[in-house]
Amino acid sequence: MKVAVMGYGTVGSGVVEVIEKHSDSLVKKTGGKSIEVSRILDLRDFPGDKHEKLFTKDFNDILNDKDIAIVAETMGGINPAFDFTMKLLKAGKSVVTSNKELVAQRGLELLNAAQESGTNYLFEASVGGGIPIIRPLAQCLSANNIEGIVGILNGTTNFILTMMIEQGMQFDEALKLAQEKGYAEKDPTADIQGHDACRKVCILASLAFGKHVYPNQVETEGITNITLEDVSYINSAGGVIKLLGQIIYISDDKIAAFVSPAVVYNGSQLASVKDVFNAVLVRGDAVGDVCFYGPGAGKLPTASAVVADIIDCAKHTDRKKIFGWGEGSPDYVVDYKSSVKMLFYIRAKASCTKINSVFGEVKYLTRKGQPSDEVAFITDIMTENELNKLLLDVDGIEVINTIKVTNY
Amino acid sequence: MKVAVMGYGTVGSGVVEVIEKHSDSLVKKTGGKSIEVSRILDLRDFPGDKHEKLFTKDFNDILNDKDIAIVAETMGGINPAFDFTMKLLKAGKSVVTSNKELVAQRGLELLNAAQESGTNYLFEASVGGGIPIIRPLAQCLSANNIEGIVGILNGTTNFILTMMIEQGMQFDEALKLAQEKGYAEKDPTADIQGHDACRKVCILASLAFGKHVYPNQVETEGITNITLEDVSYINSAGGVIKLLGQIIYISDDKIAAFVSPAVVYNGSQLASVKDVFNAVLVRGDAVGDVCFYGPGAGKLPTASAVVADIIDCAKHTDRKKIFGWGEGSPDYVVDYKSSVKMLFYIRAKASCTKINSVFGEVKYLTRKGQPSDEVAFITDIMTENELNKLLLDVDGIEVINTIKVTNY
Repeated sequence: MKVAVMGYGTVGSGVVEVIEKHSDSLVKKTGGKSIEVSRILDLRDFPGDKHEKLFTKDFNDILNDKDIAIVAETMGGINPAFDFTMKLLKAGKSVVTSNKELVAQRGLELLNAAQESGTNYLFEASVGGGIPIIRPLAQCLSANNIEGIVGILNGTTNFILTMMIEQGMQFDEALKLAQEKGYAEKDPTADIQGHDACRKVCILASLAFGKHVYPNQVETEGITNITLEDVSYINSAGGVIKLLGQIIYISDDKIAAFVSPAVVYNGSQLASVKDVFNAVLVRGDAVGDVCFYGPGAGKLPTASAVVADIIDCAKHTDRKKIFGWGEGSPDYVVDYKSSVKMLFYIRAKASCTKINSVFGEVKYLTRKGQPSDEVAFITDIMTENELNKLLLDVDGIEVINTIKVTNY
Repeated sequence: MKVAVMGYGTVGSGVVEVIEKHSDSLVKKTGGKSIEVSRILDLRDFPGDKHEKLFTKDFNDILNDKDIAIVAETMGGINPAFDFTMKLLKAGKSVVTSNKELVAQRGLELLNAAQESGTNYLFEASVGGGIPIIRPLAQCLSANNIEGIVGILNGTTNFILTMMIEQGMQFDEALKLAQEKGYAEKDPTADIQGHDACRKVCILASLAFGKHVYPNQVETEGITNITLEDVSYINSAGGVIKLLGQIIYISDDKIAAFVSPAVVYNGSQLASVKDVFNAVLVRGDAVGDVCFYGPGAGKLPTASAVVADIIDCAKHTDRKKIFGWGEGSPDYVVDYKSSVKMLFYIRAKASCTKINSVFGEVKYLTRKGQPSDEVAFITDIMTENELNKLLLDVDGIEVINTIKVTNY
C-alpha cells in the first residue's frame, strides 16, 4: 500500500522513520498489507537524504498518483494544507494529519468532504501528540454523556511552569531553557499565549459534543503573567499552576470552553504532570474521571500517532469513521465569565480587614518574603463577572494577579 | 437494534441502566440505530424489577431470537459463560463482555469463533473497568513496538494499600473496610492473592504481543505479606508499594509477565494512583510512556465500557475487529526470575556489616521504631535468581520480606 507524506519537518520525517522501522510489524497489523512511503512533498531540498528519490515539489505528483491511497499531511498551517487535503479527499484518498491548526479551523469541511467521497480524514496526532485521546473519546467513552474535559495540552508551557515550580526559575529564564532544549520555537507566541492549547480545546470540544468550535470562540489567556510569587503562594496552598484547557457541558446547545492558567491542587492526576508531558482528563456521567497521560509532542511520539491512523486507513479501506462532528454556531460557546462558577486565587495589595469586608472569611496564603501590604487568598465560589463586580469601585484593593482554580 | 444481557448482577444491571439512560444519544452515536434491551438472562428472580417482562431463565430464548444481534455477557466465570458465548458467536451474534476470567482463559477460541462467523467478540470492560485501554492498545499504539506494560489492575488491593500507606491501617483492618465499602468480596482471595490482576495481565499481554498468555503462565503473588513496617521503610525511600502486573518484551517469541507487590517511586505516574483507581502504563518504542487512568471497577464505569462495545458492534455490523491474537505456547512466557534484572527492597534481621559484605554499598532505609537488629535496603540491579544465590548459605541474614522495585 503506497503512502505519501506532505511536509518533511520534524513530524513528517518521523512518520517516514516509524513506517520504515516497523515495516514487518505493520504488515501484521494491517492484516497483511505492507505500507510503503512512495512520495514525499517538500519545497526544501534534502541533499544526501536517503529518501532523495522520493522527494517532489509538485503536489500533483501525489494527487495524480493512483497508487497512493493514503496521505499524511504533516505540513502544519492552514494554507496550502487545506487546499491540498481537500483535493486529496475529493480524489478518493484518505488523509491523516497532525495539523491541529487546520483541524481546529476547518475540520468540519474536511470531514464532510471525506464523508462525501467515502474516504477518511483522521487526526489522532493533532491533540496530545502520541497520547491516544481522539479514538478513546470518540469510541471508548461513547456510552457516556461527557460532563467536562480538562487538559494540559501544551508541553512547552508545562515545561516552563515546571521549571518555575520546581527550580524557582523566572519565566524568562525558563523560556530560554525551553528554547535551548528545542521545546519552544524561536517565536514562542503560539505556545506561551495559549493559542496552541486553544486549537486542541477546539478539537476536543468538537469531538466530544458534536458541534464545531472555532478558535475565536475560545477565550484564551497564556502564562506570561505568572510570577514566582504566585507559584510560591499556591505552593503554600498545596497546589500548582498549570495552563489548562477547560471544556464544560452546559446543555446540548451550550458549552463553555476556555484556556487559562489555573490552580490545580495536589492529588489531582493533573498536578503530577510535569515537564513536556500532556494529560487530558475526561469526566463522563457513567465512567467518572478518566485520564490520558503521555508525551504531548516530539518527533516519534507524534509520528507514531500519525502512523496509527495510517494503519487504521489501510486496515479498513472500505469504511469511514463517523465522528458525528457537525456545524457549530456563534452562540454555542457561552461567555464563561457569566456562566461558570469557580474559586479564584487573588494576589493584591490590600489589608486583610479590607479583603474580609469584601470577600468575607477567606483562606489566606503565604510566601517567603511576603511584603506586609500584600495578601493572597482563595475566594468563595462565584463567576468571574461576580468577582469583578465585587471588586468594582472598591478602594484599597489593588489586584496584582487573579488565577482560576479548577475543580478537576 | 435488539440487545440481550446475560447476568443481571452489578455490571449487567448497569449495562441496562446505561443503555436506557442514554437512549437518545445512542441513536446519534450508532449513526441512527436505536439500541433496546429485549432480553435479560438470569437464574435469579427479581420481583418488582421494572424489566420483569424481559427476564428469562432459558438461554435458548436469546440464542434463537433472530432479532437479537448483540449480547452482553456479564455473568462472569468460565461456565456456562463460555458455552453460551460460543453458541452465540456461531449463531452469528456479536458478544461483548466484562468477563476477564473467560477472556484470559479462553479468549483465543472465542476470537477465532467470532472471526469464522463474521461477528465480533469485544472485551473493553475486561481490563481497567471504564478506562479505555483495549482499543488504545490495539489501535492507537499500533505503530509502536511495545517494550513493556505495567499496571495497577485491581482496585480492591489498591484501596487496601492506600489505607495502609495513608492511614497507617493494618492489612486486616484495611481489608475489613474494603469489604464494608463493597470494594472487596466476602471471599477476597481472587483480589488479595493477585488472581484478578493476573487475568488482566494475560489479556493485556495477549493483545500487545499477539500470542495468548494463560493465567497459569503468569507467576502471581498477592499483597498479604505486606506490612506497615515495609510501607514505612519504603516511604522513607520516597516510594509506595503497589500491586503491579508487569509485562516485559524480550523477543518476538519470549515475554516475561508477573504479578507482585512492587515499590514505585514517587514521580512515577503510578505512584499517585490511589484508592480503587487503576492505571495502565504502556511503553512503546516510538511514543515512550503513555498512561491510562480511571476507575477500574464499579457498576456504571464498567457498564459504560460494555455499552461502548455494543455501540461499536451496532455501528459496524458488517465488519470484524482484527485483534491479531494468536496461539500461545508453554515456553512463551519465560521465568522472570532468571531473565529480568531489577532492584529489590529487602528487610532483614542482620547487621549492616554483614549486609555490606554480601551486597556491597547499599542504600539503607529507616523507619520509626526500627529495632537495632533490623535493616532495610535497596539492592543493586540483578535477577531474582542472582539475589537468591547471594543469600544462599549466608549466615547472619534472616530475610523478613523482599519486594521488587519497578523501573516504571
